Amino acid sequence: MSFEQFLIELVLILAAAKIGGEVAERLKQPAVLGELVAGILIGGPIGWLAIDPNAVALQVMAEIGAVLLLFEAGLESDVDDLRRLGPAALWVAFAGVALPFILGYAVALLLNLPSHGAIFLGAALTATSVGITTRTFQDLRVTERPEARIVLGAAVADDVIGLVLLAVVSGIATSGSFSLLSGLKIAGFALAFLIGSVLIGIFGAPFVMRLVARMRTRAALSTMALIFCFLMAALAHRFGGLAPIVGAFAAGLVLSTTEHKLHFEARLKPVADIFIPIFFVLMGAAMPIGAINPTTRAGQATLLLALALVVVGVVGKVVGGMTVPVRGLSRLMVGVGMVPRGEVGLIFANVGLTHHLIARGQFTAIVLMVMATTFVTPPLLKRSLGVGGATVSPALRAASDG
Amino acid sequence: MSFEQFLIELVLILAAAKIGGEVAERLKQPAVLGELVAGILIGGPIGWLAIDPNAVALQVMAEIGAVLLLFEAGLESDVDDLRRLGPAALWVAFAGVALPFILGYAVALLLNLPSHGAIFLGAALTATSVGITTRTFQDLRVTERPEARIVLGAAVADDVIGLVLLAVVSGIATSGSFSLLSGLKIAGFALAFLIGSVLIGIFGAPFVMRLVARMRTRAALSTMALIFCFLMAALAHRFGGLAPIVGAFAAGLVLSTTEHKLHFEARLKPVADIFIPIFFVLMGAAMPIGAINPTTRAGQATLLLALALVVVGVVGKVVGGMTVPVRGLSRLMVGVGMVPRGEVGLIFANVGLTHHLIARGQFTAIVLMVMATTFVTPPLLKRSLGVGGATVSPALRAASDG
Repeated sequence: MSFEQFLIELVLILAAAKIGGEVAERLKQPAVLGELVAGILIGGPIGWLAIDPNAVALQVMAEIGAVLLLFEAGLESDVDDLRRLGPAALWVAFAGVALPFILGYAVALLLNLPSHGAIFLGAALTATSVGITTRTFQDLRVTERPEARIVLGAAVADDVIGLVLLAVVSGIATSGSFSLLSGLKIAGFALAFLIGSVLIGIFGAPFVMRLVARMRTRAALSTMALIFCFLMAALAHRFGGLAPIVGAFAAGLVLSTTEHKLHFEARLKPVADIFIPIFFVLMGAAMPIGAINPTTRAGQATLLLALALVVVGVVGKVVGGMTVPVRGLSRLMVGVGMVPRGEVGLIFANVGLTHHLIARGQFTAIVLMVMATTFVTPPLLKRSLGVGGATVSPALRAASDG
Repeated sequence: MSFEQFLIELVLILAAAKIGGEVAERLKQPAVLGELVAGILIGGPIGWLAIDPNAVALQVMAEIGAVLLLFEAGLESDVDDLRRLGPAALWVAFAGVALPFILGYAVALLLNLPSHGAIFLGAALTATSVGITTRTFQDLRVTERPEARIVLGAAVADDVIGLVLLAVVSGIATSGSFSLLSGLKIAGFALAFLIGSVLIGIFGAPFVMRLVARMRTRAALSTMALIFCFLMAALAHRFGGLAPIVGAFAAGLVLSTTEHKLHFEARLKPVADIFIPIFFVLMGAAMPIGAINPTTRAGQATLLLALALVVVGVVGKVVGGMTVPVRGLSRLMVGVGMVPRGEVGLIFANVGLTHHLIARGQFTAIVLMVMATTFVTPPLLKRSLGVGGATVSPALRAASDG
């Protein structure tokens, strides 16, 4: 792809994101929903632009978007807050993994799938997408509410759990047997990386930042913050075996404890505003809308399985989230916030297909489940806002407006 | 290249840029010089990182950096100012093309090159790099001075002239004869695109901006500005046959006439601060430092030719620029500002080599000339600041500090 073509596609993606976001907001929906629909329109078979899956640069920029989204989320977090709400978040994470797994496994067995495939489908339902939820909370301007903090913490914990599950399940696939040791090893590495890096960061960051603050060259401080974010994202993947977004979240968390927090937020916003919409538009564009034909038996089976997965996927996460052991919250908001699956679910589908654990129809059903849970969350979350818990004052909403 | 590797290379590039920039500023040199040296160190044979030339995403981000640099330059321009200084800029552009061309042609003949190759070497000396000069002016905080405006205008005009020359020279190469008609056609398209888009933009932009200002979604106004920049860059290439950076400059010029100029500048800066250093570090990394061996006869011939090209390249541009027909300026500053060659010179070298107009040794000599003129400009420009013309007050310097 030439640079000129790249520019044209970038223009189309950004314009689609802004127009989709605008339409969504006019319909009183979160902007991210409009960006996803815009992605489907320009990427799907009815669209007028076939986005080249080999367009590496656009994919990389979308991935940077996901990294910056979580970095922003970490930066806007409050470590004390997270420490206080940590136990509740862990509870929600475990309940939100256990229930969908059991329900998904049961449903798959009911639909006459083999046992290995049923375990895999159950596992594919476990990991919450941090990205969709974070963006929706931002769009609705409720990132400051404790429900949002709990969901964010639980979603990050979910990523770690989901990763361990994936390693275990693919271990079964390749060796035919399950190794508790390798599962524990992966979990240990991931936890050690997260806790270690946050602790080292919290004690080391003020020192480094004092040094960088004395630099004279343009934008030294904010560039160093981004360097730290990208570095942590890469290291999380390399040494923790974690998704890069988890490292980015940890980096944001560390920098939220420094005195430059507000400066970083202000400088990061214009950069994030370019990259993040690319992520959501491309996510919409990846939807295999032409892959299900309801007039064939195979298409019907796929749609039935997808429907069943969506139902147990939503019910499992909502019920799991509603068991949160904290008073005075909108429990429904916590449960609904855990619903979207996103990237980790797609990774599961991919691994399952390439390891022959699931057939193509089941693969498509997982992808449809990921898309459906992504789509129902923003409107459901918006509705759940008022149910129980404290409402946000208009003044606070206005203050958090970008 | 995996996303993890990409992140690591991005971290190295950004860190090298900031450290190089800091060292340069401490040595009272422009930051861009430090970024170029940092690029040589991490890209060259003595470096500890071999930047993959196939790393598409990094190259694309570097090209976006160049586009944003020129967009920023256009945005900071003043159309009235440019109209007033336009004739002087055109004079400087033509003088700065004619002198190096004649001198380069003569020197190449003296060194016993064939006539076709000599014409090509002369042509390769003509086009000033807008990028290096703009960045150096920014680093030295003198973008507001009339000398800087003249050089910028002349450099953009130079790009158009250089392009026409390139078309003519490659026309000779492929058909064996020169077509005045095709040369005029290219020049006409380029001029029509530039003037047309700026005129349409200046009358149309306020209308569009009023519409966009009423949008509710996050960052609509600044994203639309970037969309306009990328679109103009692509269209300049597609319909004008111009380098994308020329379109980006025109886009910035158009938006500089709207009431949101300051808002755009503030929102653009954090984005530009990420992309632009990537451009300069990768430019440094592309330097073929291991390609010249002074102990061989071929290496000696290449070095001699490179030295001759540098001398006539610098002298031609400085003398050409010093003929600027405006009083009360630092003429030396105008002349020195025109010295760096950069990307267009590299394009010439590439076309010449692939069309067998020049040999590999002459190719290397052109690349060395481009690098050398790039390197001598920042320190020379800094020295030329005080020579004639008005000096900048400390208050103004402080006010323009980012």
